[in-house]
Amino acid sequence: MKDIKFEKNPLKTIPLRQVEIHDRFWDRYIHLVKDVLIPYQWDILNDRIEGVETSHCIKNYRIAAGEEEGDFEGAVFQDTDLAKWLEAAAYVLEISPDKDLECLVDETIKLIGRAQCEDGYLNTYFTIKAPSLRWTNLKEGHELYTAGHMIEAAVACYEATGKTEFLHIMERFADLIGQVFGPGEGQCHGYPGHQEIELALIRLYHATGKKEYAELARYFIDQRGTGENYFLEEEKRETYRQIFPEFADYDAKYSQSHLPVREQTTAEGHAVRAVYMYCAMADLAQLYQDRELLEACRTLWDDMVRRRMYITGGIGSSGLLERFTTDYDLPNDSNYSETCASIGLALFGRRMAQITKDASYMDVVERALYNTVLSGIAMDGKSFFYVNPLEVWPDNCIARTSREHVRPVRQTWFGVACCPPNIARTLASMGQYIYFADEDTLYVNLYISNSTALLLAGDEVRVEMTSDLTNSGHIEMKLLRKEGAGAFCLALRIPDYVSEYSVLADGEQAVQGKASRVLQTRIEKGYLYIEGIEKAETELVIDFSVPPRFVRANPRVRADAGKTAIMKGPLVYCLEETDNGENLSAIFADTTQKMEERYEEELLGGITVITVKGKRLLEDGWEDGSLYAQRSPCFEDVELTAVPYHCWNNRKPGEMLVWMKELV
Amino acid sequence: MKDIKFEKNPLKTIPLRQVEIHDRFWDRYIHLVKDVLIPYQWDILNDRIEGVETSHCIKNYRIAAGEEEGDFEGAVFQDTDLAKWLEAAAYVLEISPDKDLECLVDETIKLIGRAQCEDGYLNTYFTIKAPSLRWTNLKEGHELYTAGHMIEAAVACYEATGKTEFLHIMERFADLIGQVFGPGEGQCHGYPGHQEIELALIRLYHATGKKEYAELARYFIDQRGTGENYFLEEEKRETYRQIFPEFADYDAKYSQSHLPVREQTTAEGHAVRAVYMYCAMADLAQLYQDRELLEACRTLWDDMVRRRMYITGGIGSSGLLERFTTDYDLPNDSNYSETCASIGLALFGRRMAQITKDASYMDVVERALYNTVLSGIAMDGKSFFYVNPLEVWPDNCIARTSREHVRPVRQTWFGVACCPPNIARTLASMGQYIYFADEDTLYVNLYISNSTALLLAGDEVRVEMTSDLTNSGHIEMKLLRKEGAGAFCLALRIPDYVSEYSVLADGEQAVQGKASRVLQTRIEKGYLYIEGIEKAETELVIDFSVPPRFVRANPRVRADAGKTAIMKGPLVYCLEETDNGENLSAIFADTTQKMEERYEEELLGGITVITVKGKRLLEDGWEDGSLYAQRSPCFEDVELTAVPYHCWNNRKPGEMLVWMKELV
Repeated sequence: MKDIKFEKNPLKTIPLRQVEIHDRFWDRYIHLVKDVLIPYQWDILNDRIEGVETSHCIKNYRIAAGEEEGDFEGAVFQDTDLAKWLEAAAYVLEISPDKDLECLVDETIKLIGRAQCEDGYLNTYFTIKAPSLRWTNLKEGHELYTAGHMIEAAVACYEATGKTEFLHIMERFADLIGQVFGPGEGQCHGYPGHQEIELALIRLYHATGKKEYAELARYFIDQRGTGENYFLEEEKRETYRQIFPEFADYDAKYSQSHLPVREQTTAEGHAVRAVYMYCAMADLAQLYQDRELLEACRTLWDDMVRRRMYITGGIGSSGLLERFTTDYDLPNDSNYSETCASIGLALFGRRMAQITKDASYMDVVERALYNTVLSGIAMDGKSFFYVNPLEVWPDNCIARTSREHVRPVRQTWFGVACCPPNIARTLASMGQYIYFADEDTLYVNLYISNSTALLLAGDEVRVEMTSDLTNSGHIEMKLLRKEGAGAFCLALRIPDYVSEYSVLADGEQAVQGKASRVLQTRIEKGYLYIEGIEKAETELVIDFSVPPRFVRANPRVRADAGKTAIMKGPLVYCLEETDNGENLSAIFADTTQKMEERYEEELLGGITVITVKGKRLLEDGWEDGSLYAQRSPCFEDVELTAVPYHCWNNRKPGEMLVWMKELV
Repeated sequence: MKDIKFEKNPLKTIPLRQVEIHDRFWDRYIHLVKDVLIPYQWDILNDRIEGVETSHCIKNYRIAAGEEEGDFEGAVFQDTDLAKWLEAAAYVLEISPDKDLECLVDETIKLIGRAQCEDGYLNTYFTIKAPSLRWTNLKEGHELYTAGHMIEAAVACYEATGKTEFLHIMERFADLIGQVFGPGEGQCHGYPGHQEIELALIRLYHATGKKEYAELARYFIDQRGTGENYFLEEEKRETYRQIFPEFADYDAKYSQSHLPVREQTTAEGHAVRAVYMYCAMADLAQLYQDRELLEACRTLWDDMVRRRMYITGGIGSSGLLERFTTDYDLPNDSNYSETCASIGLALFGRRMAQITKDASYMDVVERALYNTVLSGIAMDGKSFFYVNPLEVWPDNCIARTSREHVRPVRQTWFGVACCPPNIARTLASMGQYIYFADEDTLYVNLYISNSTALLLAGDEVRVEMTSDLTNSGHIEMKLLRKEGAGAFCLALRIPDYVSEYSVLADGEQAVQGKASRVLQTRIEKGYLYIEGIEKAETELVIDFSVPPRFVRANPRVRADAGKTAIMKGPLVYCLEETDNGENLSAIFADTTQKMEERYEEELLGGITVITVKGKRLLEDGWEDGSLYAQRSPCFEDVELTAVPYHCWNNRKPGEMLVWMKELV
């Protein structure tokens, strides 16, 4: 295992307002945030959409503020729906200012302020329903989790508008939390039942410069899993009131509190809890230059992405408890692979890449974003997958069975609605994944067409990128700056799936290791560094070879043995019933044949369709309706049509399958 | 679909005392009942075994009888553990009288009598815990289910010993039930939440001749699923107290009460409940010559065995709610296939065969008995499978995951211990499956070595059968009778898996359709009838061709597409890790190659091992630990070793797999 170490200057993301995305592939999703998700989810938060599960979210705030009568309704963490909506709205405002939306956000922030208790406490569930039970059920109460999402929203709003009202509200609450929790006598030595506040506190520290917030995050992380398990002790107290019956017989692994975090070597328990925690661990490792914590992050990352991750970047193999299971246990039709978990995986990978300047982390981030995260949302932005299976046979995804968590079609809204607003805030913040920068180098992670401006080596550089990554692999970049500015460096991530590529700078090959006439390049940890860019205008033409490819899983993955999946660039492909007929399990791909690809402008907003030859098991001979027989299989030749996984279930409902059997 | 109709003389089973089994294959299991199961389970019922979940069963009876202090412990249907033990003990006594065991049974019956309430009510849970709640929760209370098993035990004891005490106890209770339930005003119009009493009441009718018991069974069956659902109405009453939290949001399909039974066309809900009900439907159809009910039985049978049954005779595809799901949904690694459900399937099939004289029902019965039922018990009789998967990867059968119901090793005893005593009573009653008889014909269903004596055409016939069905397929039968007795007929079931066979009567071929010199034969519904057997001694030599065969599933079974299973005679084979190494999913059978078989005397008590050539996916190239890669699969030639499914997990724990991938 290669050594992991801190880089002198960790990489920074670029403020969203500086990155303007205009990409054929991504625009159709990103425009949904402002045009569809923000208004639609706002209506839902206000219970204005018929036939959708009641949210009651805004109403809870009004009741907590004493402005309306009624009881709390919804999940114990219902407030986070608003928090994530605000965070998404803030990103939208940062990218494209909008008076009406800003007004709505400001008003909502005021409502939140009015719902805050005098001592700074803010949580409508406990305020309305059980004020005396504050902090008595950290295991299930989600108070710290909810606070975390509110803090993230507050930081995002502050960064978007510069207004401090929300930030101050959340600082007051964070201050209260800092009084309640900590190592001191009389303080609570607990930690969150659902991690999230840790990474939020670090964001709050960066926004305010107040180190105590980072310290509090560090306390939560270091305290976790030490001594007697806090949650098991908590259950024994008289003040404890159970919220979720399914949490009886609690396993500390579920919340990664079974061991001190530095001693954890395998990704365990609830996948979303895990990755949110890993994000904070990475943040703290960087902030405190904590080598041991960074090692733990790397070990946990490796366990996830080398043994417990789907080809789509999904994590969480078990529907029950939405959890990690064991190494190489990756069933395709009964997994959970929650959209939020892949969002957390992307957040964690981005941090690891920033710390280490290692592009391999971004390979995984790209995998998660282009596949599972996008699969989570319909192309019209109106329905969502919580669970992202790799193989669906709708007939048996029925209630009260072992497959009941798998939905064969996206749902309009969920009782526990974490995923839809999480997708919204992720799409709105895509700009943060495209680039990193340090003093004098611009790192290109994702090839998404955009216009960006930033300071590099003291001078402004404007970047115009036009990318056709998901189709031809052809990318053009223009780098513009004023005459005479200092030289800067460009670091291009060479994706792990690209075996051949060319980079032309002003029409000439940028040769690795050699001082070419134009530019000198070197490869380091997956980035191609192009140094000494000095001219006022430099044109780069990048060609990644992205033909469709047959991918196999490690043979230890029992579920995928003897199977192949098609990928093209970062995209995982799948077969859908609407293209290939029913019973996709009867199909065998002939991987000795060449795949064909064609761009279809009219299909699903424009996608590259891939076809391949194969065979299909026939029902000939089974007309007698027998279930088992001493009968040889009988095949016909077929042509298989594959479409990108992220856009499955946007036409007719039906079967879907990623891992195809292959002729052996 | 062929017409189904009643036969003039339905077939009868032969009393167990007349059938003495001495079979190489079956003896090792059957001897367990008397030598191991009866004494072991008796100790468990009395809480005398360390390290096994407390049963409290006998103690509950003592408390109910007022002879001991304490509270009820165990499941609401804990009494049935004793009932099934008594039923098994009765069968053992019928086969081989034993003073000590009979004493124990008699004493236990007296205890049961003392635990009975004055009005005849008998159920230790309600008597001890909630006397005022009798009959208020039919959905979950299992009162009628428990009564049913007690009635079955009482009938078995009466048939074994001729003593009537237990029978009278249960008649008193049945009389009370007949007062409480029925169509009359003031009677309860409910029916059992878990079917069982219906078939028991019919047995009680046959034992006592009292038609009212059959009438009560008919009431329960005909009332079921009519009008407003009884259980959903019951929930609304003030007297209702919930017992099982998992039954919230109850679906009437779970208990087959969603439709009147005659209108049900698909096997739905909890598999054990379903098949116990179908048994009673078949009994009632026969008794009342109810053609419509028989049609319903046939429809439900066909749905099960043609679309919802595993190759092992297992039923119940979903771990959650232990239930049927949809047509062709037969996942191999997450199914339930409860041992008790296959026992119920065998009981139902036996009844259908008796009614219709159609051997195809016995094909399924044989499948269930030789595979799933036997898989349910370890070869030492000390541990049991509740769940019978067809593919097990022990690493991921862990608590709190989607696979948590699957146990990779048999368990010593269960909190809900329905399966172990159910296996005991089934093994003890195997004699009832071997033969049927009517006036002048002996039907041979199962080829299990035995000595039997019975009256046929008015005279005694002694039968000696020596069978090697599971190995060579060679069977010898001697039919002995006194000189000059009237001619009788023998009907040999020709198993569905036998494509070639020969039957020699006294050394000459018994030719179908032709009057041979010896005997005339004809085939009808799967039985080969050999008519006019007149001599004092007739020797039959039957040779069934039972080479190992590759079986495929209907291509609609997604889980088995591209796979094959090995069978030999009635036995399903499987691969075990101990013979084939870990990762059985990486193995491909070469079905173009001939299988080899060899009898291994020392292995697992003597089994026929089957080997076949194949390939195994190698891990070569994956040493870098990557999870997904553009890498071609790499194989080595291997020889696969298969053993009978029923005896898996009797050596080292490890992986197991029935459906192997095949080279295509």
